[in-house]
Amino acid sequence: MSDCSAIDHAHMAAALRLAERGLFTTQPNPRVGCVIAQGEDVVGRGWHVRAGGPHAEVFALAEAGAQARGATAYVTLEPCAHHGRTPPCADALVAAGISRVVIAHEDPFAEVDGRGIERLRAAAIAVETGLMKPLARELNRGFFSRIERGRPWVRLKLAMSLDGRTALANGESKWITGEAARADVQRWRARSSAILTGLGTVRADNPRLTVRLPHAAEHDADAAAVAPLRVILDSRLRLPADAHVLDGTAPTLLVHARDGAPVERDFGPAERVGVEMTGDRLDLKAVLGELARRQVNEIQVEAGPTLCGALLAAGLVDELLLYIAPVLLGDRANPLLGLPQLTDMSARWKLKTVDQRMLGTDSRWLLRPEEN
Amino acid sequence: MSDCSAIDHAHMAAALRLAERGLFTTQPNPRVGCVIAQGEDVVGRGWHVRAGGPHAEVFALAEAGAQARGATAYVTLEPCAHHGRTPPCADALVAAGISRVVIAHEDPFAEVDGRGIERLRAAAIAVETGLMKPLARELNRGFFSRIERGRPWVRLKLAMSLDGRTALANGESKWITGEAARADVQRWRARSSAILTGLGTVRADNPRLTVRLPHAAEHDADAAAVAPLRVILDSRLRLPADAHVLDGTAPTLLVHARDGAPVERDFGPAERVGVEMTGDRLDLKAVLGELARRQVNEIQVEAGPTLCGALLAAGLVDELLLYIAPVLLGDRANPLLGLPQLTDMSARWKLKTVDQRMLGTDSRWLLRPEEN
Repeated sequence: MSDCSAIDHAHMAAALRLAERGLFTTQPNPRVGCVIAQGEDVVGRGWHVRAGGPHAEVFALAEAGAQARGATAYVTLEPCAHHGRTPPCADALVAAGISRVVIAHEDPFAEVDGRGIERLRAAAIAVETGLMKPLARELNRGFFSRIERGRPWVRLKLAMSLDGRTALANGESKWITGEAARADVQRWRARSSAILTGLGTVRADNPRLTVRLPHAAEHDADAAAVAPLRVILDSRLRLPADAHVLDGTAPTLLVHARDGAPVERDFGPAERVGVEMTGDRLDLKAVLGELARRQVNEIQVEAGPTLCGALLAAGLVDELLLYIAPVLLGDRANPLLGLPQLTDMSARWKLKTVDQRMLGTDSRWLLRPEEN
Repeated sequence: MSDCSAIDHAHMAAALRLAERGLFTTQPNPRVGCVIAQGEDVVGRGWHVRAGGPHAEVFALAEAGAQARGATAYVTLEPCAHHGRTPPCADALVAAGISRVVIAHEDPFAEVDGRGIERLRAAAIAVETGLMKPLARELNRGFFSRIERGRPWVRLKLAMSLDGRTALANGESKWITGEAARADVQRWRARSSAILTGLGTVRADNPRLTVRLPHAAEHDADAAAVAPLRVILDSRLRLPADAHVLDGTAPTLLVHARDGAPVERDFGPAERVGVEMTGDRLDLKAVLGELARRQVNEIQVEAGPTLCGALLAAGLVDELLLYIAPVLLGDRANPLLGLPQLTDMSARWKLKTVDQRMLGTDSRWLLRPEEN
């Protein structure tokens, strides 16, 4: 990174913005962008759109053509070195005569993991790594989590009144937040590999858990968003047959207890998988491990206080996406999070505010546990 | 207001900033500022510092001297026309040869109430009213509330975790918010005529309810802040004898039930007053009426969920000053507000966000009920 100039930063920033265009479509692959430049002049640009389709480097090289010779390639993730569904990008960069490659983040994926860089260096290409690495990491925090930790990135989405209540005691929760906040939730759903909830929420609200983007055209028009997997934790498989998550409009996975669930019930298009129990609930760590095996990078949890609280108390939450509406519901209304009782303030869960903004009259908070 | 120019606006804005210097010191009087100008040139400035001392106009006229002749006076509140503790300011403006007076807000106080304006017009002075009136009103919202509604302006000060909890179940509540938020609370206390709490909070936290300004020098050095009256709602006079509010460092008023309280108990320097009960609690409207009679303009309530909730449910809250710390305490911790159970979301208490900002890692909200 020591040899990176202001021009390098500008090109890498452009590559990151290109990568972002794949935010809703690359699942289960990471989002990757590529800029090819001769000094200040950009001669090729590309981003990965969809798993199975060409990688970012391929699009950028195609646009650059003969101008790739002697050029610098800026890639947000280490170029691949293996034959996956497409040939190795490292080889393509070498073949095109690229003389220098700047990489934001190494690819921890077992079949790459430094081999892309090795292959470039072996071809006498100058390689720099780590330029704008934190931003590249943020863009694929789900992918990195799955590869590095063996579990998806877990985001709790919560909407509450100013006094920390999510619904009335009778379950009514509609319209706590306004239109802008609800539209925003759809964009966070769209970037998720899976949306996770519990049987209680299905029974109370019967949500569809599909993505309804208010302005689909605001994102890459070439490719429709990949529908997130709907994951329902339902240890005893008591899901009502008329649940909207069984409507077949998006993939659905029912997670039940490995033993003791009536697996003979027919849930139509929904898949199912059994995991072990811990006490009277599904082992949440095992659930996340199973989802990682199914290539789930980023999970949005839209569930009740019990499941959300259990994930948080187990240290399995990576961020909270919290919408606060300027209303009061009072202490008889439902709480935000079921958590173990504290006897000492020093044990409180501390959060770091990553982002805070207004959406209409509601405010939106992105927070992460301070340990992370 | 139709004849007001940009220059008029600039001078009135300056007069409002001068008025603000009396924020901590004019109790029970309103904060008033005055600018005297010849065209663009300011020749005199003044503000009301302390009840019993000169009014803003007197200071400004003294600075202007002979230059007051033919000048325009900008006053944030209608000049007085009565002999109170000082002679009428309207007469002083006439005597100084002021030719035009621009007034932000009429004075609803019974002994003024248009008479100041009449007296100026009778002396052939041109008078304009209503310039920047909303700002002038905000500055003295407590004074206007007391005069117009016969009750003080009521602000609930609340500090909570992100999940809407104010203390652990065992009562521990220290350090939910950080240093910047706690210092900010002191400034809001300093502008209040009274700080109100209940017996429960005294028993749980034993607060002093005095003002400790972190940087006293940031405000008018000529005059120390007027200590707010400490008001304790204690229907049966069960206040512990060692309560800090009885330490004599600031005036204290104990409000008890008119009948049935053991008024023979000795509370040292604290005053006491009886009001009627409504059911099993003090009639809150009667409490506020009594405080208005005692010239309390603005009250800051620093109490528990029961008293705060009761004030809100009774429609007696004018604003909420809410500090939110980025921590979670869980559903076993204490709630923000005790409110009647809702069965229909349309009955939720709707608030308008007047101001929202970060104080260190905490956020501060100023909200008002939407009806107001």
